[in-house]
Amino acid sequence: MLEQVLQTIEAGRQQSLAGLTQLLSIPSVSAKPEHKPDMQRCAQWLAAQFAHAGLDAQVMPTAGHPMVLAKNQHQAGRATVLLYGHYDVQPVEPLDQWTTPPFAPTIRNGAIYARGAADDKGQVWAHIQAIAAWHAHGGLPVNITALIEGEEEIGSENLETFVRQHQDDLHADIAVISDTNQFAKGIPAITYGLRGLVYMEVKLTGADHDLHSGLYGGVAPNPANELCKLLATLHEHHGRVNIPGFYDAVEPVTPPERGEWSKLPFDEKALLAELNAPALSGEAGYTAIEREWARPTLDINGLTSGYQGPGAKTIIPATASAKVSMRLVPHQDPLKIREAFTQTLQDRCPKNIKLEITCHSHCGPVLVPRAGRAMQLATEAVETGFAAKPTLMRGGGSIPVVSLIKSVLGIDTLLVGCGLPDDRVHSPNEKFDLEALHSGTRTVAVLYQKLAQLKG
Amino acid sequence: MLEQVLQTIEAGRQQSLAGLTQLLSIPSVSAKPEHKPDMQRCAQWLAAQFAHAGLDAQVMPTAGHPMVLAKNQHQAGRATVLLYGHYDVQPVEPLDQWTTPPFAPTIRNGAIYARGAADDKGQVWAHIQAIAAWHAHGGLPVNITALIEGEEEIGSENLETFVRQHQDDLHADIAVISDTNQFAKGIPAITYGLRGLVYMEVKLTGADHDLHSGLYGGVAPNPANELCKLLATLHEHHGRVNIPGFYDAVEPVTPPERGEWSKLPFDEKALLAELNAPALSGEAGYTAIEREWARPTLDINGLTSGYQGPGAKTIIPATASAKVSMRLVPHQDPLKIREAFTQTLQDRCPKNIKLEITCHSHCGPVLVPRAGRAMQLATEAVETGFAAKPTLMRGGGSIPVVSLIKSVLGIDTLLVGCGLPDDRVHSPNEKFDLEALHSGTRTVAVLYQKLAQLKG
Repeated sequence: MLEQVLQTIEAGRQQSLAGLTQLLSIPSVSAKPEHKPDMQRCAQWLAAQFAHAGLDAQVMPTAGHPMVLAKNQHQAGRATVLLYGHYDVQPVEPLDQWTTPPFAPTIRNGAIYARGAADDKGQVWAHIQAIAAWHAHGGLPVNITALIEGEEEIGSENLETFVRQHQDDLHADIAVISDTNQFAKGIPAITYGLRGLVYMEVKLTGADHDLHSGLYGGVAPNPANELCKLLATLHEHHGRVNIPGFYDAVEPVTPPERGEWSKLPFDEKALLAELNAPALSGEAGYTAIEREWARPTLDINGLTSGYQGPGAKTIIPATASAKVSMRLVPHQDPLKIREAFTQTLQDRCPKNIKLEITCHSHCGPVLVPRAGRAMQLATEAVETGFAAKPTLMRGGGSIPVVSLIKSVLGIDTLLVGCGLPDDRVHSPNEKFDLEALHSGTRTVAVLYQKLAQLKG
Repeated sequence: MLEQVLQTIEAGRQQSLAGLTQLLSIPSVSAKPEHKPDMQRCAQWLAAQFAHAGLDAQVMPTAGHPMVLAKNQHQAGRATVLLYGHYDVQPVEPLDQWTTPPFAPTIRNGAIYARGAADDKGQVWAHIQAIAAWHAHGGLPVNITALIEGEEEIGSENLETFVRQHQDDLHADIAVISDTNQFAKGIPAITYGLRGLVYMEVKLTGADHDLHSGLYGGVAPNPANELCKLLATLHEHHGRVNIPGFYDAVEPVTPPERGEWSKLPFDEKALLAELNAPALSGEAGYTAIEREWARPTLDINGLTSGYQGPGAKTIIPATASAKVSMRLVPHQDPLKIREAFTQTLQDRCPKNIKLEITCHSHCGPVLVPRAGRAMQLATEAVETGFAAKPTLMRGGGSIPVVSLIKSVLGIDTLLVGCGLPDDRVHSPNEKFDLEALHSGTRTVAVLYQKLAQLKG
């Protein structure tokens, strides 16, 4: 039967691409209120596709953007798979850096270019295509519950409530998420570790209105000056984060991992060319792979203050603010890190400046057991799908739902993603490789068959 | 004769106010292209008033808005005064914060409310009224050349060219500008010092596009992190600017100045209430007045980087930039300071970050000799005009034309202004005190007589 399913996938490649183009044309930017109707439209479109693939699908409201929930007819005694993905995408700014418009999907160089192409619409689409192919041959060999969220890019604010409310509905033996990368083109991978995230906003206020910098310079507090000083204290030399207690719970990179990772074909020159930057950056004493996969960071994601137009305006700004996020590694606790960050800024902020700190989101780091049965089955599926043995790797990003699934539903997650490291997710000119789409669709089709072995 | 001139001014108060109301009704906003016809109309209106006051007046085109140039019949052997002012005004936004419309001049609480009331139309008008009063009694006792500009609020782009082209025409013994303030209501002042300005923009670039902060955090250079670190190095503890050589040419505050200034009725509580801030700021070891008038500063005027919208976007920004300006005091050289600033940032910027520095504008600080004959005459004029001894003060702002007049025409400028510190220039509800208008008109009428003593 698998052979026929894979043939159906092979025969449907053009049709698959046409469907993905439709999906990528919907500007489902969860962060922007003006896209609320697009979010609804995207959820409806996906539900229709799941229905077309033989599942009972519904669009379910939340306090924010809706969820798409789809299931086949569950049969007792069969393994149950929880598929999680998201249909929302990052904002597209800066728009002028896109070669083609972000919601006019365009194929060039063997890839499809659009916002959300790899993150995560293309990968969700691979699953829908695989499920549809099984549907053409009698249906999936497992019970499936697919939960496709619309708020992943804005912190999944309503996900935990939803998962807790539908705990019974979502019960499964294993979860599958395709929102990660291959190690490189031609080197497929399964991800067993992810970093956590704490995303903060820091706002400093001096006077309650902008002031003439001549008449008040040297007299009135300048929150932009103070913001820079304050944020500059958050790193030591050599790239270490300078927040008391920050490294207390960090698990050191083990010698076996170091050994494995050092053998991976990491191409620093190619990375520098991709970034168009003269040199890499980061904490001293660790390789680039170690820094991305196993070391925590603190990055300023945005700065806003005063006059930002062309030319000059001689003001002391009333306010200055920054978006600051930290990536966490096992076993840092996001709540403790948030507290340490807040306390540190409060301690260091001068008293003539008003300091406001808010948290936009937080999630814990993840480590999936490498030795389990599910991991073995996934490895076999990737090997068939990509015709290459997968690398076991970690990732520098965060998928908050993984720790949520573990803590609320008690199950592990297989991270079987097929993006490429140069897909420019969250950046202008995001793309998804067409070979990755095809091999990824094959892989997850095989994976559903393999995971049937978890029962019986 | 002076007595009769002052009686004419006294008798003409209502008429003066009616004229000023007309002038303030013309929306001469130089920054807005749609006001180009209003600029022309305002210049024509002023030229007609100068002609009415007995001067030969013409509206002279520039590459931007026109100049008004007016002269009486110059007589050999008489002192020549160059009067500079400007008829253009700041934009009026935010419009909803005006109690009465900005170009519908309204009298309340003993003041006239309108955009440009104090800055600088009301003060130019005082001169025109004084000249007209002298005209009614045989004409001014000095040669006058009045140059009223239409681009002061947008950087005086065409002024230097105009002054150089008309150098002979503008030759004078002394310049007079009324575009400064009294120290406080009832405490008239002559300003003898102004700060200079160097306004820079600093742009840092890491990768050539925004990056996912998970996938690249700890690996790619972050220009926002580096911008904060770099700008934080520009101040030492206690508010001193940390640029090598920055203070080399700074003239210390002299003990006599310290003594004088410490006796001025500076009201810190009122200033804090105006700012709605908990405490003032600035360099340790100096009073607020000393810091504003006689100490240089470095202020960030704007910060721009990465994501500035609502919520979270997990990116490492491609670029981060800042507007940074420095107020200079005698005898700092703006070109040397610009060079030191640039060199310092180049030295301190890490090599994996691209640094671009541009200069938006620069002008030198001003110190008018306090002991000179002209200053003595101006002091006597204010004393008669306001019936109060003037305070000799400095200002924290910059009036670039003063150093232009010094460098091109070789003459000093008397800054005899009659605004009040709470006139809200550049802000909604700008006003000009009616007593200041009257006393200011008297003062400049006396000043023209006094300055005749510079010759013969």
